[in-house]
Amino acid sequence: MPKRNHDQCRAIRVTPHFIEHPAGSVLIEFGDTKIICTATVESSVPRWMAGKGEGWVTAEYDMIPGATSSRKPRDARKGKVNGRTQEISRLIGRSLRAAVDMKALGEHMITVDCDVIQADGGTRTAAITGGYIALGLAIQNLVKNDKLTASPLKANVAAISVGLLNGEPVLDLDYAMDSNADVDMNVIMASGESLVEVQGTAEHALFNRDQLNQMLDLAFGTLDKLISAQNQALEIPYSSQRTTLEL
Amino acid sequence: MPKRNHDQCRAIRVTPHFIEHPAGSVLIEFGDTKIICTATVESSVPRWMAGKGEGWVTAEYDMIPGATSSRKPRDARKGKVNGRTQEISRLIGRSLRAAVDMKALGEHMITVDCDVIQADGGTRTAAITGGYIALGLAIQNLVKNDKLTASPLKANVAAISVGLLNGEPVLDLDYAMDSNADVDMNVIMASGESLVEVQGTAEHALFNRDQLNQMLDLAFGTLDKLISAQNQALEIPYSSQRTTLEL
Amino acid sequence: MPKRNHDQCRAIRVTPHFIEHPAGSVLIEFGDTKIICTATVESSVPRWMAGKGEGWVTAEYDMIPGATSSRKPRDARKGKVNGRTQEISRLIGRSLRAAVDMKALGEHMITVDCDVIQADGGTRTAAITGGYIALGLAIQNLVKNDKLTASPLKANVAAISVGLLNGEPVLDLDYAMDSNADVDMNVIMASGESLVEVQGTAEHALFNRDQLNQMLDLAFGTLDKLISAQNQALEIPYSSQRTTLEL
Amino acid sequence: MPKRNHDQCRAIRVTPHFIEHPAGSVLIEFGDTKIICTATVESSVPRWMAGKGEGWVTAEYDMIPGATSSRKPRDARKGKVNGRTQEISRLIGRSLRAAVDMKALGEHMITVDCDVIQADGGTRTAAITGGYIALGLAIQNLVKNDKLTASPLKANVAAISVGLLNGEPVLDLDYAMDSNADVDMNVIMASGESLVEVQGTAEHALFNRDQLNQMLDLAFGTLDKLISAQNQALEIPYSSQRTTLEL
Amino acid sequence: MPKRNHDQCRAIRVTPHFIEHPAGSVLIEFGDTKIICTATVESSVPRWMAGKGEGWVTAEYDMIPGATSSRKPRDARKGKVNGRTQEISRLIGRSLRAAVDMKALGEHMITVDCDVIQADGGTRTAAITGGYIALGLAIQNLVKNDKLTASPLKANVAAISVGLLNGEPVLDLDYAMDSNADVDMNVIMASGESLVEVQGTAEHALFNRDQLNQMLDLAFGTLDKLISAQNQALEIPYSSQRTTLEL
Amino acid sequence: MPKRNHDQCRAIRVTPHFIEHPAGSVLIEFGDTKIICTATVESSVPRWMAGKGEGWVTAEYDMIPGATSSRKPRDARKGKVNGRTQEISRLIGRSLRAAVDMKALGEHMITVDCDVIQADGGTRTAAITGGYIALGLAIQNLVKNDKLTASPLKANVAAISVGLLNGEPVLDLDYAMDSNADVDMNVIMASGESLVEVQGTAEHALFNRDQLNQMLDLAFGTLDKLISAQNQALEIPYSSQRTTLEL
Repeated sequence: MPKRNHDQCRAIRVTPHFIEHPAGSVLIEFGDTKIICTATVESSVPRWMAGKGEGWVTAEYDMIPGATSSRKPRDARKGKVNGRTQEISRLIGRSLRAAVDMKALGEHMITVDCDVIQADGGTRTAAITGGYIALGLAIQNLVKNDKLTASPLKANVAAISVGLLNGEPVLDLDYAMDSNADVDMNVIMASGESLVEVQGTAEHALFNRDQLNQMLDLAFGTLDKLISAQNQALEIPYSSQRTTLEL
Repeated sequence: MPKRNHDQCRAIRVTPHFIEHPAGSVLIEFGDTKIICTATVESSVPRWMAGKGEGWVTAEYDMIPGATSSRKPRDARKGKVNGRTQEISRLIGRSLRAAVDMKALGEHMITVDCDVIQADGGTRTAAITGGYIALGLAIQNLVKNDKLTASPLKANVAAISVGLLNGEPVLDLDYAMDSNADVDMNVIMASGESLVEVQGTAEHALFNRDQLNQMLDLAFGTLDKLISAQNQALEIPYSSQRTTLEL
Repeated sequence: MPKRNHDQCRAIRVTPHFIEHPAGSVLIEFGDTKIICTATVESSVPRWMAGKGEGWVTAEYDMIPGATSSRKPRDARKGKVNGRTQEISRLIGRSLRAAVDMKALGEHMITVDCDVIQADGGTRTAAITGGYIALGLAIQNLVKNDKLTASPLKANVAAISVGLLNGEPVLDLDYAMDSNADVDMNVIMASGESLVEVQGTAEHALFNRDQLNQMLDLAFGTLDKLISAQNQALEIPYSSQRTTLEL
Repeated sequence: MPKRNHDQCRAIRVTPHFIEHPAGSVLIEFGDTKIICTATVESSVPRWMAGKGEGWVTAEYDMIPGATSSRKPRDARKGKVNGRTQEISRLIGRSLRAAVDMKALGEHMITVDCDVIQADGGTRTAAITGGYIALGLAIQNLVKNDKLTASPLKANVAAISVGLLNGEPVLDLDYAMDSNADVDMNVIMASGESLVEVQGTAEHALFNRDQLNQMLDLAFGTLDKLISAQNQALEIPYSSQRTTLEL
Repeated sequence: MPKRNHDQCRAIRVTPHFIEHPAGSVLIEFGDTKIICTATVESSVPRWMAGKGEGWVTAEYDMIPGATSSRKPRDARKGKVNGRTQEISRLIGRSLRAAVDMKALGEHMITVDCDVIQADGGTRTAAITGGYIALGLAIQNLVKNDKLTASPLKANVAAISVGLLNGEPVLDLDYAMDSNADVDMNVIMASGESLVEVQGTAEHALFNRDQLNQMLDLAFGTLDKLISAQNQALEIPYSSQRTTLEL
Repeated sequence: MPKRNHDQCRAIRVTPHFIEHPAGSVLIEFGDTKIICTATVESSVPRWMAGKGEGWVTAEYDMIPGATSSRKPRDARKGKVNGRTQEISRLIGRSLRAAVDMKALGEHMITVDCDVIQADGGTRTAAITGGYIALGLAIQNLVKNDKLTASPLKANVAAISVGLLNGEPVLDLDYAMDSNADVDMNVIMASGESLVEVQGTAEHALFNRDQLNQMLDLAFGTLDKLISAQNQALEIPYSSQRTTLEL
């Protein structure tokens, strides 16, 4: 494989309508990271929200045991959800909620499930990027079936990881890069270059504000392309033959 | 879709080496039922088995939430493994153990994970049939890497569902057929037309011994073909381009 | 103890009305296997069934810790129900539901609890056979108290284990036989020699269809006697002095 | 049933060797309260005790679901041990440990299981009284099998409930009395009229020290008889025909 | 520190209104034992009590991990409530309910939380004594806010531990004394020298009825003083400057 | 209360040695937010770290139920750790590990517990700031007791929250501000103005990079003062009279 530059993403592939049953679904691939994102709709909201005329979007993230290089035991067997799994689920849900006007969604509850079937770094950002597509397809469905008169989406939301590796800013870290990175940062952006969330963490070395800015520059350059890809994917109609969009 | 005869399987597709990390992996499809089976190997056995010089094979079955027509909540969120999930996991493990000479396997522990990504009936039998392939690939790996001198596999194990629908025996029930079937039976067979397990259950009507025999006849006719397909799949070498075998 | 023939059951003892509080109860003994079966009635059904005018029957199986030769730890202490326990509970419930016309039962929920107080093999089949008696006594109670105008029972359901031991079919395996059996099979039959469920499992050796048929023959010969015993037990009226029926 | 005086126990029945497998077992009945007590021995102690040359005695209490007038759901199904169940288990364990010289027991761990099969008040005190017998039989076994040279029992431990009902002290409350009692007290005594534990609780009315003393007087009068019965029960040898001692 | 006599309490300090948010709160200190007690009020009762026009009082006890000399792991991390913790919570709730006329409380539910921030013996009795103050403050609040026309408190409830140490009765055992005590007893008293609960447990040696009476005498002498202190604390008005009452 | 400027912290109070038992402890107050931080030391590391000659620092965060305006149910009662609780615990642990040279710490495991006793916004940043002090005191102890020859601390770590409220950057959000903030950001800094972690989240409105920079400026101005306060606090010797440092 030709080595990519530090400001290049891995090959990105998007296969909308990957799974039959859910209202929206997509297989998203960032290099060897592969995630099935599905969005299912319920026509009622959790009890604590009922009666406000507003909807809700939530997300759950998990991995199948074979996704990682050493088998990841199932949380259910331990009787509890792993802390990292919960934290990522919360991040995805929070990010996707920034894309939706909850009043316009009305009392619908959309659950976005992101199941990693193969992991090679950057799963949380790929899950947000793919999760937006599954969410978008589910909302198209609501509109098509006259459950909503207009789309409640107010912006795209996409995400990418950046980091510092040997003192240099790098884009879209795979597992090997992530293991060695000094700093790991997830940038979640809405269309219009607005920030939804920034999470930068010193892993092996601290970072200063210049480095923070260099990493943000790198992320912003790619996030616009991811948003275009999301919009293209949402144009692909359902067909029993799946279409894969390559970036 | 042209209607199939009651003694015909759905279209079966097998994609070996589907996932990168595990020692063995396969995507198996029976019509719209799609399952990722992976086999991972540990070079030690559970404590209660240690020191006997024997290996062990176990299996875990689960579904991603988007696999079914109404979203299936994750067991981990409830803090316990669902009874049906445990029962199917136990059946798969028991069936696959019939394929292996545990002495010849030595102190290796192989876990076969069967994660249903799309469900349309017959998931447990497809999981056994695909699980055998993942297991076989993992064992090839052990032999190739000189962890074993010869394969401990003593027979193929494959499975198919049969049933009684409107009084007639039918093969390979999809979800719609399964919901209406009077009797549902899973037949797990080893090469040589030996039975590994038979589970026949009256759902909406009881059945007599003639009907039991008609269902078994139907199953046996197909199981030999599934075993051939397994052997073909095990011949396909790893390549970054996946090959799909269609039946 | 005189050795029994391979086509003979162990001594069977049935003590109806064994426990005071539940609507129906029985102590059933197959040799040294002893199980208290109780049936309790609620005049409402689970929420997912409400409003259909139908009833439901469910079952739960467990063992007291002292029932087995080495102490069996309580599931509750581990915070989860053991897989085997769940699987047997589901089998008993499914089998007993085959005995009942749910429309005729109306919106009643009957729970059959099978608590093994001493285990020596064949607990699941003894639990089904005894569970039917507890269920029958509870239904008598409903009729006597004018909660039902007629019994919703449409057939008896009884069960026995058979197996292959040293290549020969054997009936009603105790623990020692079960540990050495090549094949273990549970046959659940309704009155009229109709099958409710068949579960045959290769333990140490595979089996062919001839052997399957020999085991079924053996089971059917005894199941008719068990059904007669159930009917006799249901004739025994409540009295503060318990009566034990011996077979 | 002739009404008993307030200073009379209910009919007490003791059937030693009730269950085959455990080292010690007994069925103890206080009127309609029936409990199977079993004692199992392990030849090692929990890790935190190892290496001190001392043994340990612990107890677990539970009820089968059919034991009470309305069905008691199983703790295991809820994934946790009920608070009352834990509290009673701890009380039984603490009380029985007062009977044993832990140094003399050596590194053995004895678990006393008390499974209520029918409940009519006073289960915790009956469990202690019966638990002592199961413990004693298990210790006889250790001595007989040369695991111990002498019995480590230093005193009998027995228990009875007393209370205040309509202002008057009453002995051995059944469920109906217990529901109406103003005060409920459990008295656990060792041979020699020494107190092991006293737990008196105001339920519907407070109590003063005179009343406390009257209740203790009532309890002491009966506890000596229970201790004699325990000793008699421990004299009954194992036989396949069970012997029941009536008090 | 000057050694205290065996009939003297440790220094007792009471700081009402310690925490801002709850309806009632107090920091209670018995020597180095420090507990934050808070009482929160809900204007509805648990479902099983609804519609009776009665209220309910419940309590929960726990420790922060740093409270004890070796760090106490959090129950939540183990997924279950520790038996000792549940038992103490039940004792506190039961004791405080003796202080309240549930009819007069109306359909309010009061939860008293007792969180030990530093433990040095006697936490359960200090929690009851402090819990009563938090409860009293919450009830003052209900009256002040016209949720109740009169206080439903019918008596104070206070508690103290006593024990036998080297054969002598001692009052208010700290951790070091408690570890060496032969007998440990908790005495819970209502105003008017009425008993709410007595729990005496032989730890290292049995006790007789004379010793029981000596311990009760010791407890009663102090409980009257604790009740006076409770009443004084309930007179202290809220102020952003906390007032501490010393005994 | 005089309104503070948007670039001013709330009153900060630090009481070292607040709790007796743990190696290090502190009460830290940011206005009405009050947290007890304790650090306990074990002279062994978790199994997966053993033998590397390195130490580990971990953290657990929780609230007592009375800390918030409506009572917060205990996680342990639900049998699982809340997602938010786990996420904050992980953040604190990660941040404090940035302060420590794990090689120099040797095989010691330090657990920092942060128990919020009163919550008014900014608990996670106050917990990190206070947690560092508890950690520092515990390390002083290790050095004083000759378990370590030199302190393994390589930098202070302190944290503060900032946000956007009505479009303007604000410092140290209390609960009321936090509820209305458009953006909420936590800045964790090491001495030398190096970043340990930045987490900025759009709550009610997105934010741009200028706003990100304004918030960071605000945070940096205060973090240097917090670090000085930490160092002052670490100079205060243990005494039975607690000293409170006010900022």
